[in-house]
Amino acid sequence: MTLDDGGSDAAHDPSPGDAHVIGIDFGTLSGRALVVRVSDGAELGTAVHEYSHAVMDSTLAATGEKLPPEWALQVPNDYRDVLRHAVPAAVKAAGIDPASVIGIATDFTASTPLPVLADGTPLCEVPGFEDRRHAYVKLWKHHAAQQQADRINAVAHERGESWISRYGGFISSEWEFAKALQLLEEDREIYDRMDHWVEAADWIIWQLSGTYVRNACTNGYKAIYQDDAYPSREYLGALNPDFADFAETKLTGDIGQLGHAAGTLTAQAAEWTGLPAGIAVAVGNVDAHVTAPAAKAVEPGQMVAIMGTSTCHVMNGEQLAEVPGMCGVVPGGIVEGLYGYEAGQSGVGDIFAWYVKNQVPASYYADAEAAGKSIHEHLTDLGYAEPVGAHGLIALDWHSGNRSVLVNTELSGMVLGATLTTRPEQIYRALHEATAFGTRVIVETFNASGVPVTEFVVAGGLLKNRDLMQAYSDILRLPISTIASDQGPALGSAIHAAVAAGAYPDVRAAGEAMGKVNRAVYTPNPASADAYDALYAEYLHLHDYFGRGGNDVMKRLKQIRREAHQ
Amino acid sequence: MTLDDGGSDAAHDPSPGDAHVIGIDFGTLSGRALVVRVSDGAELGTAVHEYSHAVMDSTLAATGEKLPPEWALQVPNDYRDVLRHAVPAAVKAAGIDPASVIGIATDFTASTPLPVLADGTPLCEVPGFEDRRHAYVKLWKHHAAQQQADRINAVAHERGESWISRYGGFISSEWEFAKALQLLEEDREIYDRMDHWVEAADWIIWQLSGTYVRNACTNGYKAIYQDDAYPSREYLGALNPDFADFAETKLTGDIGQLGHAAGTLTAQAAEWTGLPAGIAVAVGNVDAHVTAPAAKAVEPGQMVAIMGTSTCHVMNGEQLAEVPGMCGVVPGGIVEGLYGYEAGQSGVGDIFAWYVKNQVPASYYADAEAAGKSIHEHLTDLGYAEPVGAHGLIALDWHSGNRSVLVNTELSGMVLGATLTTRPEQIYRALHEATAFGTRVIVETFNASGVPVTEFVVAGGLLKNRDLMQAYSDILRLPISTIASDQGPALGSAIHAAVAAGAYPDVRAAGEAMGKVNRAVYTPNPASADAYDALYAEYLHLHDYFGRGGNDVMKRLKQIRREAHQ
Repeated sequence: MTLDDGGSDAAHDPSPGDAHVIGIDFGTLSGRALVVRVSDGAELGTAVHEYSHAVMDSTLAATGEKLPPEWALQVPNDYRDVLRHAVPAAVKAAGIDPASVIGIATDFTASTPLPVLADGTPLCEVPGFEDRRHAYVKLWKHHAAQQQADRINAVAHERGESWISRYGGFISSEWEFAKALQLLEEDREIYDRMDHWVEAADWIIWQLSGTYVRNACTNGYKAIYQDDAYPSREYLGALNPDFADFAETKLTGDIGQLGHAAGTLTAQAAEWTGLPAGIAVAVGNVDAHVTAPAAKAVEPGQMVAIMGTSTCHVMNGEQLAEVPGMCGVVPGGIVEGLYGYEAGQSGVGDIFAWYVKNQVPASYYADAEAAGKSIHEHLTDLGYAEPVGAHGLIALDWHSGNRSVLVNTELSGMVLGATLTTRPEQIYRALHEATAFGTRVIVETFNASGVPVTEFVVAGGLLKNRDLMQAYSDILRLPISTIASDQGPALGSAIHAAVAAGAYPDVRAAGEAMGKVNRAVYTPNPASADAYDALYAEYLHLHDYFGRGGNDVMKRLKQIRREAHQ
Repeated sequence: MTLDDGGSDAAHDPSPGDAHVIGIDFGTLSGRALVVRVSDGAELGTAVHEYSHAVMDSTLAATGEKLPPEWALQVPNDYRDVLRHAVPAAVKAAGIDPASVIGIATDFTASTPLPVLADGTPLCEVPGFEDRRHAYVKLWKHHAAQQQADRINAVAHERGESWISRYGGFISSEWEFAKALQLLEEDREIYDRMDHWVEAADWIIWQLSGTYVRNACTNGYKAIYQDDAYPSREYLGALNPDFADFAETKLTGDIGQLGHAAGTLTAQAAEWTGLPAGIAVAVGNVDAHVTAPAAKAVEPGQMVAIMGTSTCHVMNGEQLAEVPGMCGVVPGGIVEGLYGYEAGQSGVGDIFAWYVKNQVPASYYADAEAAGKSIHEHLTDLGYAEPVGAHGLIALDWHSGNRSVLVNTELSGMVLGATLTTRPEQIYRALHEATAFGTRVIVETFNASGVPVTEFVVAGGLLKNRDLMQAYSDILRLPISTIASDQGPALGSAIHAAVAAGAYPDVRAAGEAMGKVNRAVYTPNPASADAYDALYAEYLHLHDYFGRGGNDVMKRLKQIRREAHQ
């Protein structure tokens, strides 16, 4: 069943005159609420609330118990605290009348699932289960289910499951099935007790509206829902006999389309937020995907890159195509009526951050400070002062592995070409370029798969680096547009809230009115683009050599490293 | 003609009782004189004199003219100043009677040739030629004759010249022929005017003794003297018709064996040095080769590694063998009666120095200072605190290219395996290991060529790093001995002076009495050696891939870099 368009449920006047909506972006460490004017997308006020428990990746707060490596948990009540604190604070900062708010919507990290009872109570809040690590939220970056993911992939390929190619041939250990299988195999009591395995993206909507709706976005990208079905009993049973009925027992629930209303704000949630009960609550959404309409980039060919510590790419297409190494393709995964494609780079800004923290000497910090610049600005200014290729370097941007298109967490970083005259800013720039070359591999793979990329639209913190953006434009040979909001995801959520409230007929129309983008801020410099082509050819050669089986040295080094640490 | 054993020329009592000798080590930036007791090698006093003109690599001092890239010149009178200043200062420091000095010997960087008149006058001292760059000494690291070296090698291989395999298949741009051909082709007047093309190693002996003798060491390694002949007229004419008579006109001169006397100290040189006229002056020698007897390592199988900014390997063998990629094999190249083999690594300590200067953050310097350690000590302590392979890294030690066994200056450095948790000390250790793996490639190539290496004897500044030495022992699976003198080359020269003065019958005997070594200070740890084997296998795979044509990316990047700078 698909829910009705939410506008019909909205309790308040949907006229966009002085109506407002709230978008809430639930990130890894905090949640941000943003008050947006429905008529034009003006951002009137915002507030952030940090999660008290942040990420539990070393100890379980309730017991002090040490967690194994690769674990990353969260406490669901921290999310409720965002409703309690950030929303009223944002409304206050905006100086608006709460009664003018006609809808609320959220976006979340994903896949970030938790086990709940039939009424939505998280198992970690069930008395007696507070000390059970598997009763908590498994954050997107919980990477302890790799063994399960490996089986999920192997069995899918063995059995020739048709859905595996919708995910570039690879289901991630970050997603719902691997994490659920880990739960089954490591804490059977919690598994048996849970009634639903729910994305936090949907759980928070449940908290707001009292209604459990599985959003089409996470359900498609993270829960392997393809062609109107989850993976079969037979397949799931082949993973573990006791997992055979997982989909039919734990993933039950209506599926909601993005921009629809899941329901209306409950009295309880109205009390938390200070907003009027009965206003529209939109179906849940994901931080990356929700950004597309905020950047007015929902047409086929407009690839949105949310560039921060990592990069997530989302793009709509009119046809269903199977792009090797993509993260997934989901009908309505970004907006209704189009196929939503997703790809990603697992390390981008965090590679630059690692570099400046670990590989840049004191004199650079002193010079940056003297010039009143950040270290990134300083290294960028120095690094881009010379022509393309003058550093003589090629790097591979795999310090966190490679998500698209190689889908291999065992890969690692490389810098090649250093001499005794190589300077820190040159390696810094080479790392910049490596991430752009990695993006080009993704773009070219999409192009070659019949999903052409015609515009590159950047959101996220890295868009502030103009030299980096120009390098991306030159390397991709694409115009680069940049979102004109500092709060892309929260603005995207607000757009969905406006649609859910019936103020616009659909997300496309709302994005057109409320989204913000600067078009083609960067265009390729032909001479630089030509020069980068030569470097890209070298990158691609090394990419394929180390990434496609020519030399599995990176994988072997990780194994040697693991054994050395035992 | 070969000179008589120098002992017969010595004017003073050769009894070793309280007799002394002077060894002078002419380095890249300074000359060091050392006073040594003949009976036991005791080092009694030393003094250093820095060259006033240091290395002229950007401008010619006489005119201020800018030099092209890759040039490196010196001023010969700076070497005479070492005789004038360092020798008397060392004698004074030793507190000995100058009359007790029975011999003097020198060692020099090589190949460091200069053009001179028939009487030994450097052309740069001939009025009217002071402003001619080609009239000066071309220091070993003058790399502007690469084009000539390329031709020298290509034509040698085309014509199947037998001597090319005595140099591992490759004549360096650093050596006499490439530099002479550059002189011919770039300044014909200077070329025509010079009577001799002389190594500074021999020129300084000429200054001391008034006798021009070409030492067997540089004449073999640097002047392609093999099987009692220089390259043929036909070969030389194929390089350049005007070069056909180069060997027969410019390389004339007697050849002297190491440890023999070239002559006796002239009155002029006695005045400069404060030493008695008439004492023995040994045939010239090279810094690396002269170190072997100082470290008591002149027997076949004892490979001496002089480990500093770069590493030079010298070893004697009983048979003539052709080792691929070696720098050269010369009969009597280290001691008379054995074949002297030489190999090298073009970057070692200077890679570590580059790294700590360019890639290590402030906190490490602060911690090192707080702990009262050098940055190298601090990084070493941290880096070696974890087991072999725990860093997950492999590096290639080619920041200055690869001398042996690939003989390719176009190669460059690489670090592979970095993740976001990689720490600076881990990369530092990986660079250490890379140089040891590079040494292992050399050792294994010698072993495979019938010149087995049984002991590794280290001289040079890096022997102070105990963890580095242990890593070398583990990686090479060889015992490591270390020279027990801080002045290896100067001590080696002093040993040659003692032989030239007739105090010992030959260099072997003198080295036995005067040399100093700590035997097998490090022996392989079997578990570490096994663990390093796995990393070495990865190194070797990458070494061959990037170094033997699997992927010439490094060469192409250098070309791209050159073009970008144009």
